[in-house]
Amino acid sequence: MSDPLITLTTDFGEDSPYVAAMKGVILTLNPAARLLDLSHQIPPQDLRHTAFFLKEAIPYFPPGTLHVIVVDPGVGTERKLLYVEVDRQRLLVPDNGCWTLLAASARPERVIALAEPRYWRQTVSSTFHGRDILAPVAGHLSKGLDPVKLGTAVSTWVQLDWQEARFHEQGIAGQVAFVDHFGNLITNIPGDQVPVRPAALTVGRRTWRRGLPRVRTYGEASPGKLVWLVSSQGWLEIAVAGGNAASKLRAAVGTAVSLNWLKR
Amino acid sequence: MSDPLITLTTDFGEDSPYVAAMKGVILTLNPAARLLDLSHQIPPQDLRHTAFFLKEAIPYFPPGTLHVIVVDPGVGTERKLLYVEVDRQRLLVPDNGCWTLLAASARPERVIALAEPRYWRQTVSSTFHGRDILAPVAGHLSKGLDPVKLGTAVSTWVQLDWQEARFHEQGIAGQVAFVDHFGNLITNIPGDQVPVRPAALTVGRRTWRRGLPRVRTYGEASPGKLVWLVSSQGWLEIAVAGGNAASKLRAAVGTAVSLNWLKR
Amino acid sequence: MSDPLITLTTDFGEDSPYVAAMKGVILTLNPAARLLDLSHQIPPQDLRHTAFFLKEAIPYFPPGTLHVIVVDPGVGTERKLLYVEVDRQRLLVPDNGCWTLLAASARPERVIALAEPRYWRQTVSSTFHGRDILAPVAGHLSKGLDPVKLGTAVSTWVQLDWQEARFHEQGIAGQVAFVDHFGNLITNIPGDQVPVRPAALTVGRRTWRRGLPRVRTYGEASPGKLVWLVSSQGWLEIAVAGGNAASKLRAAVGTAVSLNWLKR
Repeated sequence: MSDPLITLTTDFGEDSPYVAAMKGVILTLNPAARLLDLSHQIPPQDLRHTAFFLKEAIPYFPPGTLHVIVVDPGVGTERKLLYVEVDRQRLLVPDNGCWTLLAASARPERVIALAEPRYWRQTVSSTFHGRDILAPVAGHLSKGLDPVKLGTAVSTWVQLDWQEARFHEQGIAGQVAFVDHFGNLITNIPGDQVPVRPAALTVGRRTWRRGLPRVRTYGEASPGKLVWLVSSQGWLEIAVAGGNAASKLRAAVGTAVSLNWLKR
Repeated sequence: MSDPLITLTTDFGEDSPYVAAMKGVILTLNPAARLLDLSHQIPPQDLRHTAFFLKEAIPYFPPGTLHVIVVDPGVGTERKLLYVEVDRQRLLVPDNGCWTLLAASARPERVIALAEPRYWRQTVSSTFHGRDILAPVAGHLSKGLDPVKLGTAVSTWVQLDWQEARFHEQGIAGQVAFVDHFGNLITNIPGDQVPVRPAALTVGRRTWRRGLPRVRTYGEASPGKLVWLVSSQGWLEIAVAGGNAASKLRAAVGTAVSLNWLKR
Repeated sequence: MSDPLITLTTDFGEDSPYVAAMKGVILTLNPAARLLDLSHQIPPQDLRHTAFFLKEAIPYFPPGTLHVIVVDPGVGTERKLLYVEVDRQRLLVPDNGCWTLLAASARPERVIALAEPRYWRQTVSSTFHGRDILAPVAGHLSKGLDPVKLGTAVSTWVQLDWQEARFHEQGIAGQVAFVDHFGNLITNIPGDQVPVRPAALTVGRRTWRRGLPRVRTYGEASPGKLVWLVSSQGWLEIAVAGGNAASKLRAAVGTAVSLNWLKR
């Protein structure tokens, strides 16, 4: 048996002491815990970015891994904190919808609202529940605490406001769902729904009447060229070979992306 | 017994190979060491930032944890390198005061100036003592070396030039002590000293004659609103709900913050 | 025996889910693997930066450490993926030359082109071989898989286009090889080849006819002063004490740096 694994995903950055404090709290409770950073560079308070990040990262982990997620604009308000079992992963997460894309295919097996202060730090601040509630609860869980003891099972929770692409007779209307570190625009349009024959493509205010060249991978296009491909997660992705599509097209999460069969 | 834990805090960034080299040196000496990144995004050579960071992170760790800190503008000069035991934590740190806030309440139990090259790398550069001295010493300590062997006990060390808030009859004169990743301004004014009744608040050149609204937490204010609260560490903190107070107020570490009872 | 160590070096950043996905894939195959981040802040697709980074980091690790490197502008094209044993380190790396500086002194003991899909993820995308090929292969290797099974030994590979300094009668002509996190300019001119007596120094378009003051370390110069020194890796380095030489001199990787004995 390996030591228990706890991953950490936050929007805290590394310049502030917040992540470090959480690590200390967990290790004080369970010195054998293995801590693994997933990201501390989630854009501040960006729930949609978090949702996409988690959906593309969490499912790859071994069943039973415990993931602590602190992107928490509502910290200290009436929003709940949740323990979730979904698709054989375990999460500790604010009830703000940032995890619900994970539950799009599989209904969560268990959702518990944290209510038992005995597993929290003795003094709980109103602005740092990552340190004062989630970290100690993670420490206890990693030592084998039965999650039933954490609080009450709930059957409703906040759902992320996530738009799916709309399919209509003349095409598909979607949007940019994620901009990755390279500036690639990953849309919410499933790549396998895009016809091979050229269709007009619109990104924001700009339209390519005959679409963009399709490539299998970045290196197939000449440097600087705008192309589309199917992303490693299966979505229609717009990229600049060796460059940054987001800055070239001034596009961001939410920018409209549409395909139109007729506009040739 | 878990494997020995060594934390790393530097201003090296991740784009340079310096942190990686230190990790390699430690693991070569002790393959069983568990390395934990606290931060490599300390602003370059910023001792005050380091001091606040350490004060808000180190005390949460299990007693006996070994913390290697490399923010070292004086590397290669006559400044000493220290092994410190304070408040049951163990530090390896340049003698530049960046750790002395940790010793504000508890006097350090032991401070040793590193002087024994047998525990260093064979060749010591004049610009990278993190790799050549602190990392190998950490490796040896993690294998159980008695710190007495590292050098000579000393009774004086450089103290950080840290200003405490001044209390006077008409108010409190303090300053911004830390700007966190979200742009929240954390001051050196203890939150529990701030009266509930409104008082004039000045940040830099700007004064709010009736003070700012107090909230318990960010989510209590409407987005974009400027408020104050007691930080998770207990200090008067100025924040913009869902925004960045530092850029909104053009404030930085050192910006004067004062409360005045009379100026209504 | 400690658990097997796997280091990760990428240009993926931390805001994207790519590193996290790779960590999940490795740990699913080998829950006992110890993962260690070297850097995820390599500038996007910058092979020369990667090369310098690896050269200054990898040799410090214990023999046998497995290093996964994903800076891969050619992902999905015909470029190979390699398993390399060089100087007692083990690498998994795209065949794009980013590792060949490591082999400058020692010829690699073994280079294998990955060809056996049985050790890859079942579905392999064309844009994310880090997750789909390198991570699972790392997982298998960390469990003891004989690397011979991964593919075919090769005797040629892409060499990095790396310029060495040129020595001529009147001086040395080199260039900036690396700009570190502090903005220090590390050149490809060996520090021990630079005469103690002043020589003209040129950086880009600017020449100091009597050279720059030489210091042993940054703190020997007054703040803001431009100096040169021998870097911790042994190269001629140009620095601004307490400042950023790259922005002060508008220099970058590739900027010409030359010494001239005669131009006094």
